[in-house]
Amino acid sequence: MARIVMKFGGTSVADLDRIRNVAARVKHEVDAGNEVAVVVSAMAGVTNRLVGWCQQLSPLHDAREYDTVVATGEQVTAGLTAIALQEIGVEARSWQGWQIPLRTDGAHGKARIDGIDGGELIRRMQIGQVPVVTGFQGIGPDNRVTTLGRGGSDTSAVALAAALKADRCDIYTDVDGIYTTDPRIVAKARKLDKIAYEEMLELASVGAKVLQTRSVELAMKERVRVQVLSSFDGANALGGDLPGTLVVDEDEIVEKEIVSGIAYSRDEAKITVRHVPDRPGVAAAIFGPLSEAGMNVDMIVQNVSADGSTDLTFTVGRTDLPRAKATLAEHRAKIGYAELLADTEVAKISVVGVGMRSHAGVANTMFAALASKGINILVISTSEIKVSVLIGAEYTELAVRALHTAYGLDAA
Amino acid sequence: MARIVMKFGGTSVADLDRIRNVAARVKHEVDAGNEVAVVVSAMAGVTNRLVGWCQQLSPLHDAREYDTVVATGEQVTAGLTAIALQEIGVEARSWQGWQIPLRTDGAHGKARIDGIDGGELIRRMQIGQVPVVTGFQGIGPDNRVTTLGRGGSDTSAVALAAALKADRCDIYTDVDGIYTTDPRIVAKARKLDKIAYEEMLELASVGAKVLQTRSVELAMKERVRVQVLSSFDGANALGGDLPGTLVVDEDEIVEKEIVSGIAYSRDEAKITVRHVPDRPGVAAAIFGPLSEAGMNVDMIVQNVSADGSTDLTFTVGRTDLPRAKATLAEHRAKIGYAELLADTEVAKISVVGVGMRSHAGVANTMFAALASKGINILVISTSEIKVSVLIGAEYTELAVRALHTAYGLDAA
Repeated sequence: MARIVMKFGGTSVADLDRIRNVAARVKHEVDAGNEVAVVVSAMAGVTNRLVGWCQQLSPLHDAREYDTVVATGEQVTAGLTAIALQEIGVEARSWQGWQIPLRTDGAHGKARIDGIDGGELIRRMQIGQVPVVTGFQGIGPDNRVTTLGRGGSDTSAVALAAALKADRCDIYTDVDGIYTTDPRIVAKARKLDKIAYEEMLELASVGAKVLQTRSVELAMKERVRVQVLSSFDGANALGGDLPGTLVVDEDEIVEKEIVSGIAYSRDEAKITVRHVPDRPGVAAAIFGPLSEAGMNVDMIVQNVSADGSTDLTFTVGRTDLPRAKATLAEHRAKIGYAELLADTEVAKISVVGVGMRSHAGVANTMFAALASKGINILVISTSEIKVSVLIGAEYTELAVRALHTAYGLDAA
Repeated sequence: MARIVMKFGGTSVADLDRIRNVAARVKHEVDAGNEVAVVVSAMAGVTNRLVGWCQQLSPLHDAREYDTVVATGEQVTAGLTAIALQEIGVEARSWQGWQIPLRTDGAHGKARIDGIDGGELIRRMQIGQVPVVTGFQGIGPDNRVTTLGRGGSDTSAVALAAALKADRCDIYTDVDGIYTTDPRIVAKARKLDKIAYEEMLELASVGAKVLQTRSVELAMKERVRVQVLSSFDGANALGGDLPGTLVVDEDEIVEKEIVSGIAYSRDEAKITVRHVPDRPGVAAAIFGPLSEAGMNVDMIVQNVSADGSTDLTFTVGRTDLPRAKATLAEHRAKIGYAELLADTEVAKISVVGVGMRSHAGVANTMFAALASKGINILVISTSEIKVSVLIGAEYTELAVRALHTAYGLDAA
């Protein structure tokens, strides 16, 4: 017997038939003797419609009213799911954020969870009742409904799992797990049985958008074991058991791969600031204004100085590029650069693995593999468990396939 | 300066443009120096869709979950209306039933209001904020959302007006007031400036479905002055003032008409039970089983006895007729009737007026007017402020027009 939080996203509850499937899946876990709590998102499309209404009425609408409107999506799904469960003989009741209560801070529209009183839900689960909890929402210090921001239902589920001391938090999605890389690019991509929190964070932030980054951070902090699995897979939908990928502490992973996955992102743009004076404070002069304007700078490389001047190259989110150029132009006199170059035809390729900590030569394998395919590296950045390179966007697929083979990740 | 509760139904908030119109209408009252609270229904069609989902998932669904799902309709409208008000410079915030709190009993799906804590709302109104309250919903003793049953938003508005000690409760509808009769039948029908609660109750129950009966009963009990007026009328929509009909205590009506209105209903069916033994207990034998089966019997007439047996004629709701016939057939042995006759081609015509209390001859005027048109009266029933007759359905329009003229109600 285990205590499990099961979370179903918008596409998994998109219509009444899918809600019935969700109920059948929950019943399967209940019948297996588990204590189960369910977290649901709004039916697919509903949140977008509600958000659209708020924006049409007022582009600068009151975030508290926005939350009042938007939180109804999850409330509907929670009630309907409870009805679907009762209909097939599973005792269930819906819980809204304010009823639990699931307390958040007062940052309406992007609130953070302060705490969940899990006592009553645990009592209900122990007598065989399934709580069906609205994801994405809570109650703020002002006694008003708050929402956690888009994708917040994953975070709700992980936080609830922590509060309920659950053995596992199962996140049902439209993929059946975490892969070594994008299977649409590499046919031999393998589903991972386990992945470490840190690896998942690096993968999430570079484009493998399966779990919300916040939910993974929270899982890592609270040591919640998260399983990513498919709600559409035949076996799971029909009550079978097709395991997904477990996101766990790296200590749980006995056979650590040096590299667990290859990620890519085409959402970057490269900026080169040419001929800036090579003196203390110039980096601050460049990155300070960008940071103040709310733009994240990712990879940074500074050329070796020549003649007292240097070039700085870095990446920003592609959608931020026009703003970044405008900001730098505005501060040109203070920075003192000769020329500004921008390139959007770039891609960031990252190899990720906690095994890197104890292995040298990981970056070298990457550089050699890319060189052998004639791919030029524009920028390099590294962290403890990740090596990222920026390359021409046209080489994305070629690079990902070459690296997948080079690190021995191809399925047999 | 007055304190006003303004209630807008589903068609008045059916889309964003109409919600903007509602906001403009509210701003008009605020700008005139009034303290205003708003009560809103769900956008037209939303409640039906939510109810349909619950029924499709389970015909015998949990009423508590039904309430959770269905109450979201008003929550969306309240939030959107608050945004629309803020957008045009009116300070506003939405309030859900549980936030006020608006307490109800635990009869989920058809709850009755137990009490409203109006203190915080009054404080907000006094500093110029407009509370936008979800109609139709409250919070039950189990700390769960309840709904008041279909059309409950009128009742919410009247109850709120009582709790806020409002000078008036304005119910915006798709008609511009209460008429002496149906203007589709009588072109010379006049809009009434004022009507007494008791008259409105009689009119509501015989087919003039402008206000929920429960809301009128509550208004009478709490002495809330209710105004029925049009949200679509050009003047009102644009911020002008086109008064509707005030529903008030009869003491407020100085020039009491003997008859205020003529109502009709084609939702009746007539049953005649022939040749029943004329002995004590026979009425109970007939009406007991009908009552137990949940059917309302309306007009009853018992013929003069002949040869120790008599005929009983009465009306039931037309949709109840098949069940009524089956119930009587089932109890035939005990009742001991010879024959059962049913007729659905009947209409009930009622003349209503508090002035009748002090005037004789009202019924006679009715009988004479109908006789002059050759209309046969099948059944008669009277109350203190109403005379009703059952006639052949084909004479409905003719009878209503004749009576409207006979009582001097025709517009000049």
